[in-house]
Amino acid sequence: MLSFLQEKRLAYKPAIPPILEDLSRAILVPGAASALPEPIAKLFPKTHSARRLAIQQEAEQPGRKLTVGVLFSGGPAPGGHNVLAGLFDGLAQIHPESTLIGFLDGPKGLIENRRKILTASDIGSVRNQGGFDLIGSSRVKIETPEHFEAAAKATSGLDALIIIGGDDSNTNAAFLAEILPLSVIGVPKTIDGDLRSSEIEISFGFDSACKTYAEMIGNIERDALSTKKYYHFIKLMGRSASHIALECALATQPNLTLIGEEKQSLSQIVSQIVTLIEQRKQTGKEYGVILLPEGLIEFIPEIRSLISLLNQLLAKESKPELALDNLGDEHRALFFSLPEKIQKQLLFERDPHGNIQVSKIETEQFLLELVLKQINISTAAHFFGYEGRSCLPTNFDANYCYALGKLAALAAREKATGVILAIRRLNRSPSEWEPTAVPIASLMHFETRSGKEKAVIAKTLVDLQSPAYGRFARERDAWKLDDAYRMPGPIQFFGPSDLTDSVPLIL
Amino acid sequence: MLSFLQEKRLAYKPAIPPILEDLSRAILVPGAASALPEPIAKLFPKTHSARRLAIQQEAEQPGRKLTVGVLFSGGPAPGGHNVLAGLFDGLAQIHPESTLIGFLDGPKGLIENRRKILTASDIGSVRNQGGFDLIGSSRVKIETPEHFEAAAKATSGLDALIIIGGDDSNTNAAFLAEILPLSVIGVPKTIDGDLRSSEIEISFGFDSACKTYAEMIGNIERDALSTKKYYHFIKLMGRSASHIALECALATQPNLTLIGEEKQSLSQIVSQIVTLIEQRKQTGKEYGVILLPEGLIEFIPEIRSLISLLNQLLAKESKPELALDNLGDEHRALFFSLPEKIQKQLLFERDPHGNIQVSKIETEQFLLELVLKQINISTAAHFFGYEGRSCLPTNFDANYCYALGKLAALAAREKATGVILAIRRLNRSPSEWEPTAVPIASLMHFETRSGKEKAVIAKTLVDLQSPAYGRFARERDAWKLDDAYRMPGPIQFFGPSDLTDSVPLIL
Repeated sequence: MLSFLQEKRLAYKPAIPPILEDLSRAILVPGAASALPEPIAKLFPKTHSARRLAIQQEAEQPGRKLTVGVLFSGGPAPGGHNVLAGLFDGLAQIHPESTLIGFLDGPKGLIENRRKILTASDIGSVRNQGGFDLIGSSRVKIETPEHFEAAAKATSGLDALIIIGGDDSNTNAAFLAEILPLSVIGVPKTIDGDLRSSEIEISFGFDSACKTYAEMIGNIERDALSTKKYYHFIKLMGRSASHIALECALATQPNLTLIGEEKQSLSQIVSQIVTLIEQRKQTGKEYGVILLPEGLIEFIPEIRSLISLLNQLLAKESKPELALDNLGDEHRALFFSLPEKIQKQLLFERDPHGNIQVSKIETEQFLLELVLKQINISTAAHFFGYEGRSCLPTNFDANYCYALGKLAALAAREKATGVILAIRRLNRSPSEWEPTAVPIASLMHFETRSGKEKAVIAKTLVDLQSPAYGRFARERDAWKLDDAYRMPGPIQFFGPSDLTDSVPLIL
Repeated sequence: MLSFLQEKRLAYKPAIPPILEDLSRAILVPGAASALPEPIAKLFPKTHSARRLAIQQEAEQPGRKLTVGVLFSGGPAPGGHNVLAGLFDGLAQIHPESTLIGFLDGPKGLIENRRKILTASDIGSVRNQGGFDLIGSSRVKIETPEHFEAAAKATSGLDALIIIGGDDSNTNAAFLAEILPLSVIGVPKTIDGDLRSSEIEISFGFDSACKTYAEMIGNIERDALSTKKYYHFIKLMGRSASHIALECALATQPNLTLIGEEKQSLSQIVSQIVTLIEQRKQTGKEYGVILLPEGLIEFIPEIRSLISLLNQLLAKESKPELALDNLGDEHRALFFSLPEKIQKQLLFERDPHGNIQVSKIETEQFLLELVLKQINISTAAHFFGYEGRSCLPTNFDANYCYALGKLAALAAREKATGVILAIRRLNRSPSEWEPTAVPIASLMHFETRSGKEKAVIAKTLVDLQSPAYGRFARERDAWKLDDAYRMPGPIQFFGPSDLTDSVPLIL
């Protein structure tokens, strides 16, 4: 049952670049080739020489009846349904008898060939809506020969497969592009914001998620200021990079924001928090708001080295406890200095890639424990994550995703493969946006996963030289003692465009 | 630094009943007296015979220069600043040289006579804004002879004292009205919604807080539907009564909502959850959303009886552990069957009234533990509270509070005392609202506090005969297996009035 607001949002018409309005008059043209490092190029014989594609206006192109498959991969991000909508509308524009097939529950449904033909009424029910629920999603990784074979069967007869996912899912897309005799096209999704490059300015979903978190943080700041008695420790979702924390810090100006990429040691972090609390107490303030990125713990050099060693040892050991014997004195001492709960998480809870599930580690509780050993304060701990992954997309994400969907339809007609879609100049009005497509292989490097070297898309961390971080670094000292809290309030879909059409601050 | 939205909200003009527009043409007239029970009447010799006051249009009244004090008491509720704004504007309308004095940090600041004269620019900075930060708040209770004496000194020379607070704060107001030689007027504030009567349809703040929680719950529902792998246990703030849970349930239609007032036993609750999970599993659904009111644990008969016994025993014992010896076999067995953390909370953490701090008990974790003993599911636990207490007030709360503020100015001019302000017909347009004032004593009854019988305002629990609960009870079965999730989305301040001016569903 749709709420009033959901119904109103169904009727929203996304703003997109004029060139994507009529796909019959647009083509993709190859630009410069990117020279890939030899070991990467070797892995992608078919697509390594693919070029960056630019969009261009052209005389009317012949229509082509297309059958295209699409799937969501990984955690939801607001706007995903609009990628489907743009794709559906774009395919219909290219040829009225084109078909869009959704693979159900993500890569899992692809392997099992569970599918659903998407109708105008299906698409009409999810326009500008949050979530991935029309076709579902999953985190399954397509990596075994059996998986690839199943994927080949499931996509037989299709012209293209559109994979809407994050770094790992697009890595998958690159490998599938090598094997499958059809276009495999990636769409950059993740609220984490860590799938970025010079071409991919930001992944979709980031804006809506951050604005939802910023609403909550601003509310809590005003509460802290009103009751003057709690330190709020707020952990923000974001598997590894601290983009969400940075964006939310710029939006809400809390007293302290830890940025993982600053790579402070555990003792530096704790003493920074304790110093803040002491200094505020001297000015009569016994409250505050502190933001922590979920991935913080992974960046702390001593913990990072412990996790990396454990990842290697655990890949070899069937009994996790035995890995501890090979840790070495220093790492073992650190391991046993951690709260027992964290010890257990490090040893026993691992994701399907064999890695430690950083998101399950209660970093905020862990730091709180260490801080409370040194100073007595009243605290409240929060974790904002699920609240923002499936919210109604902002106009920015609704527009961006609809444009990505139409671009995906065009890329399918143009038989592009092994590419990920991107739109540049996102901080301007949609009329000035520049759609493009980038070879996925150009984003890849080698990383150790489950103890093995693997080619994967590099997660883009917060760049400490970027203008956004620079602004944060310049302003944050002023936020420590003088409360410069800023309450963005709830996302607005009506009213002045300053409110409804704002773009992420980090752009 | 104000956000765009905060600035836009500064300019919002609250809608109020026409009779409150021009206070110089309004008077309060006494209605029927309420016959109070003898023991209550005895406690309030001065105000027990006060009558319900109705507002009435009159020829222009003579202006009277007023000096009025105001304070916030207890946790923040959205709209508080608008009570100040309405009061300020109302006093200025009554006489341009009237003065509004804010006592800082609530009752604490009254006792310490810390005050601030509120200027037009102070008020101008908080119109339609969340929080209580202009003058702050606290939970201190005015109860000792020294407190009363200090309050008398601090209010000497004032015409009226306006106390904006919940049930305990208005209880305080009633006692102050007996002692102080000035008007003492209460304003019904609390997001909990438990300060209700036939006249007080809902306290202010409830609407904004619930809409903020409902936004988050709806987002989580869509996330659950998209990823299909977690059971989300969401605990909602609300010290005792389950009004917030009921309102949020009606707004978001989750799979299960526990209502404390149903007084289920612990085993009934756990088995209800386990059954739901099993039934959903049979239909292929391994996810869901469950709402729990914060005060649930207090309603569970066996726990309630344990808490009440402990409250009595602990009031007598200086060493909490010794209270256990007098528990009796059955209660002792129950006590030791609880998770250790809960045991500690029951024994050692008490509020200034000597009561167990129910809000500190992690009910959602506690129930989760019991459920997980019986069935294996992936879970995520949430607590929504602080996020909603200081958010930007909805139009409903902004209007309601501004009207209450103006009514408070009128009541001060009319020398009303020992009354709490109320506005009826809140589910209609503000132009149809009926302002009134009710003797606080008429809301009181006797309760055991710190082992002693005290006269306090009765908390109004969810009425299992009310139309709102009735609707919930009729519809909830349909929400269990078929996901009828509803995403209200973020509060909208612009656009269609269906969105911007909706009223609480329980009205």
